[in-house]
Amino acid sequence: MGEAPPPQEHVLIAIRQDMPKPVELWVRGKFADAEVTVYNAAKSKVPSELFRRATILVTFIDVPEIEDSHNLKLIHTLSAGLDHLVNNPVLKETEIPFTTSSGIHGPPISEWVILNWLVAARNYAVIHEAQKAHKWERDFPWMQKNSDQVGKKVGIFGYGSIGRQIARVSQAMGMTVHAYTASPRPTPESRHDDTYIVPGTGDPEGLIPVSWHHGTDKESVHEFLSLGLDHLVVSVPLTPATTHLLGAEEFAILSKNNKNPFQRPYVTNISRGKVLNQDALIEALNSGVLSGAALDVTDPEPLPSDHPLWDVPNVQISPHISGAGKDYLPRSFDILHVNLGRIKKGLPLLNAYKRGTAY
Amino acid sequence: MGEAPPPQEHVLIAIRQDMPKPVELWVRGKFADAEVTVYNAAKSKVPSELFRRATILVTFIDVPEIEDSHNLKLIHTLSAGLDHLVNNPVLKETEIPFTTSSGIHGPPISEWVILNWLVAARNYAVIHEAQKAHKWERDFPWMQKNSDQVGKKVGIFGYGSIGRQIARVSQAMGMTVHAYTASPRPTPESRHDDTYIVPGTGDPEGLIPVSWHHGTDKESVHEFLSLGLDHLVVSVPLTPATTHLLGAEEFAILSKNNKNPFQRPYVTNISRGKVLNQDALIEALNSGVLSGAALDVTDPEPLPSDHPLWDVPNVQISPHISGAGKDYLPRSFDILHVNLGRIKKGLPLLNAYKRGTAY
Repeated sequence: MGEAPPPQEHVLIAIRQDMPKPVELWVRGKFADAEVTVYNAAKSKVPSELFRRATILVTFIDVPEIEDSHNLKLIHTLSAGLDHLVNNPVLKETEIPFTTSSGIHGPPISEWVILNWLVAARNYAVIHEAQKAHKWERDFPWMQKNSDQVGKKVGIFGYGSIGRQIARVSQAMGMTVHAYTASPRPTPESRHDDTYIVPGTGDPEGLIPVSWHHGTDKESVHEFLSLGLDHLVVSVPLTPATTHLLGAEEFAILSKNNKNPFQRPYVTNISRGKVLNQDALIEALNSGVLSGAALDVTDPEPLPSDHPLWDVPNVQISPHISGAGKDYLPRSFDILHVNLGRIKKGLPLLNAYKRGTAY
Repeated sequence: MGEAPPPQEHVLIAIRQDMPKPVELWVRGKFADAEVTVYNAAKSKVPSELFRRATILVTFIDVPEIEDSHNLKLIHTLSAGLDHLVNNPVLKETEIPFTTSSGIHGPPISEWVILNWLVAARNYAVIHEAQKAHKWERDFPWMQKNSDQVGKKVGIFGYGSIGRQIARVSQAMGMTVHAYTASPRPTPESRHDDTYIVPGTGDPEGLIPVSWHHGTDKESVHEFLSLGLDHLVVSVPLTPATTHLLGAEEFAILSKNNKNPFQRPYVTNISRGKVLNQDALIEALNSGVLSGAALDVTDPEPLPSDHPLWDVPNVQISPHISGAGKDYLPRSFDILHVNLGRIKKGLPLLNAYKRGTAY
């Protein structure tokens, strides 16, 4: 009498923290057809028998021995890349599909960027301190320093999923966007974003930039920095080629070519501290070559409490947290949800890790 | 031998402050064909002979006697409305065209709104204080409280030029927008914005909202507040009908109908303090009916230093400055610039004041 129901999935979530209760409830609702086990792997190693019963594993780093993995049809990792697992036997020696959480960082990191731009441009620290002191302060010369983003040029140095969401919001704020990528993107197809995209965000087809630039040599970088940018957003990966790529010469080029009579360029770093020459950055901020900087990353991390960077004028520092937030886990689970639907329909997996690629 | 050049315009700028030097240079560049006189009317009254020589006057409030106005072909005011000049003889008894600066507040006020949302959602105050204390603090439970705007519903109560720019940025951040206006907007034409629009901003055709609502009665307001909104932005004018329009009952309806398991609704007021019942707002914030509020306006203003509102949890107060900034004057001068071009071409003026209307 009809088909047998498909075998129930057993989703094992092994993470090294307690999962916040509202997130757990949300996950259980989202995967209501499956058995869901949440295991805090910070307290003790995931037991073999738990791995053996699971058909789907969700984790940052806690993967089974090969002999405990035979029931698994998918391992979904909560990280954007798999560099930390690349030598793990389950990854290297089995054919269990791995998927990543690549693409989910656009919204939080873009919001961190916009937040920092606006804190700087609208002198938010003054307002915050005035409220703490219960002061209603309408000092006109101070207000005159506020500036809008309309008409400003932002150069996004590394136009990936994060840069694309920054671009989307920038455009809505009335700015023009210039994109930089390592490899050339001459055709419409080459400009597409083929990772997971949080619905309603990003620049899936690469239509937002008014100009595209590329290269890995200094000359190409200098050309990009000469566009008259008001904002430079650094979102390239750290590699030997990008280490200390931006220093005194680059900040001078950026500043010299910007014709805004009211303000020098502003630098935002959401990549890694070492992409910038941090001493040169401090000097450029102190001397007014740059009007300010928002840094979610520093060199080193953690930044020592006696480091001069903390007190440089117009610098805003946060402790490498731009991607964090309570939407992280639900969004990553959304990728898994989409993929379970794809498995049922026999479609290829989204964000599938290709064995044998670089990371 | 060719035509005589057109007579040179004499632009008189009479404002009650020193014009910031970079703004003055920018204005002189923008109107390079004209003679430009800048007069600080805070120090002494504008001399008759200066008014008499001017062909274009730019001012907030310093207009000439009728007998000094005969050379004027246009008075451009730096304010959004003309309520402060409505009984002035030059306005009432001459036919000199007046133009307003209506429409220029969208960018700064929308940026103030987005700034406040992100300060609240991403716990910026904690980061600011940590930097001041030179602390690199990556406390995971705290970060878990950060939330993104993606997927959130914003209701814009008063969909004018400011609300439209908030809508534009909200949509780019992945939110859905619901619009509320006093009068019905059933046709595409009725949804257009016909004031000056800062280029590259706003929602000129009214295409962004996923739903439109209207009315001036409580029932219509309650229906709007029942949409499941995460954000309510108050941007209606203060009238007898809108005074204390939003109180305990309305905040309860807003909260009850929002199904977000992580967070109660957030209220933003960029209108006038008295549109809200402020005591009810304080109660709704203290009891957790609302998750927070951003208030650029209070009741009364200035807010006395011993007022309880200053210390209500998750409230962010600024001293009625959301529209201020160094872009204000250049943007207003842009309207004049557009209109000088229109005069040359015989086109109707933008933002022309219609004598005999209410304001």
